[in-house]
Amino acid sequence: MALKLYDLCGQDRDLRFSPYCWRAKMALAHKGLAFETVPTPFTRIKEIEPGRAKSVPILEDEGGRVHDSFEIALHLEATWLDRPPLFGGEAGVAAARFVESWAFTSLHPVILRMIVKDIHDAAAEEDRGYFRSSRETRLGRPLEEAQQGVAALAGDLAKALEPVRRTLAGHAWLGGPEPLFVDYIVFGTLMWLTAIHGRLPLEPGDAVASWFERCLDLNGGFARQAPRRAA
Amino acid sequence: MALKLYDLCGQDRDLRFSPYCWRAKMALAHKGLAFETVPTPFTRIKEIEPGRAKSVPILEDEGGRVHDSFEIALHLEATWLDRPPLFGGEAGVAAARFVESWAFTSLHPVILRMIVKDIHDAAAEEDRGYFRSSRETRLGRPLEEAQQGVAALAGDLAKALEPVRRTLAGHAWLGGPEPLFVDYIVFGTLMWLTAIHGRLPLEPGDAVASWFERCLDLNGGFARQAPRRAA
Repeated sequence: MALKLYDLCGQDRDLRFSPYCWRAKMALAHKGLAFETVPTPFTRIKEIEPGRAKSVPILEDEGGRVHDSFEIALHLEATWLDRPPLFGGEAGVAAARFVESWAFTSLHPVILRMIVKDIHDAAAEEDRGYFRSSRETRLGRPLEEAQQGVAALAGDLAKALEPVRRTLAGHAWLGGPEPLFVDYIVFGTLMWLTAIHGRLPLEPGDAVASWFERCLDLNGGFARQAPRRAA
Repeated sequence: MALKLYDLCGQDRDLRFSPYCWRAKMALAHKGLAFETVPTPFTRIKEIEPGRAKSVPILEDEGGRVHDSFEIALHLEATWLDRPPLFGGEAGVAAARFVESWAFTSLHPVILRMIVKDIHDAAAEEDRGYFRSSRETRLGRPLEEAQQGVAALAGDLAKALEPVRRTLAGHAWLGGPEPLFVDYIVFGTLMWLTAIHGRLPLEPGDAVASWFERCLDLNGGFARQAPRRAA
């Protein structure tokens, strides 16, 4: 049975913008696994496993379900140890956890303020009421006021990415000589922005921008083919 | 010949507060190496190797000198591969570089505003003019105004440490099952604050605080014995 990944989608069912789903898809592709995605609007997530499922990605693997992108990567690593590593041991798991938390606290708030209204507009029609009310509660104001726009915050994003840039000054990948899940964590976050905004708003000479392009080429150019919203 | 480490000191020659020197000393102790430190005021660093030496730590090893705490750790790892690892391979080096840059951009500015005037007061008398003018230029105001104090910023520090806290929720050390240089990077930064302030201003129940205590116990309790300034 093919692996099945529940993947957040927009009104355009081919528009996939969840950072966490991108992390899981890149981890599956990294292990060379065939999988199909199930396009899932926000408000349909609860139907996948009533009483439990609150977010995607969710992986269905031989009838069992794995929730959460990091758990999915750990599950794939344990199941497919003979394939290219995603972590390379417990030290690598700890390093990835650090970067996951850093991305959540340092990158996600900036990106959310770049695109929150655009996410609303791209979301499935049935999702927009839920999305607006939950995000306006979180942000404390209307989406139209909360979104400052990409141009206004591009400098903040470039600055927040400094640890990535500095690591890439000495290494091909955040994982060192080869890409690891830690690369897909940051890549997934930037694909969230890119899918909604249409492009990554970094200077072309920025080492982070060229690393992002190399990520798009990984695993048969899997992510490069993904539809983006027009900028 | 014993290894020799040039180590920043205060007016009290036993007060050692440089975060970078603490990283190097912990790396040396981790490898089980005997070493002596050379207490060095800021303004004497340039005499170590005129025309080159601009900062400490500097390690003297068999007549050769290694500058910069990260370079020292890499040098020790390459020289003493049979001793406990500091990185555990290139992926670990990349992970440590990420955390080094994160600490520099996310922790150091907060801590500097906590203690910059206190560092001045603890510095060697001959260093105080240099320290004041260089830091006032960097901060754009008098040290007396720049220092907001530990109490005012303890919440910011606790918040900035979230990626450390989250990693420690699933791992004994930032390096995973055993401490690695990545632990000493963050530890060194917090020893800077602790040496000057007298104690680490985190809630006792904070996982970061208990990890810090365990770091103090490492390598024969080496860092626990270090003099601190009275709070």
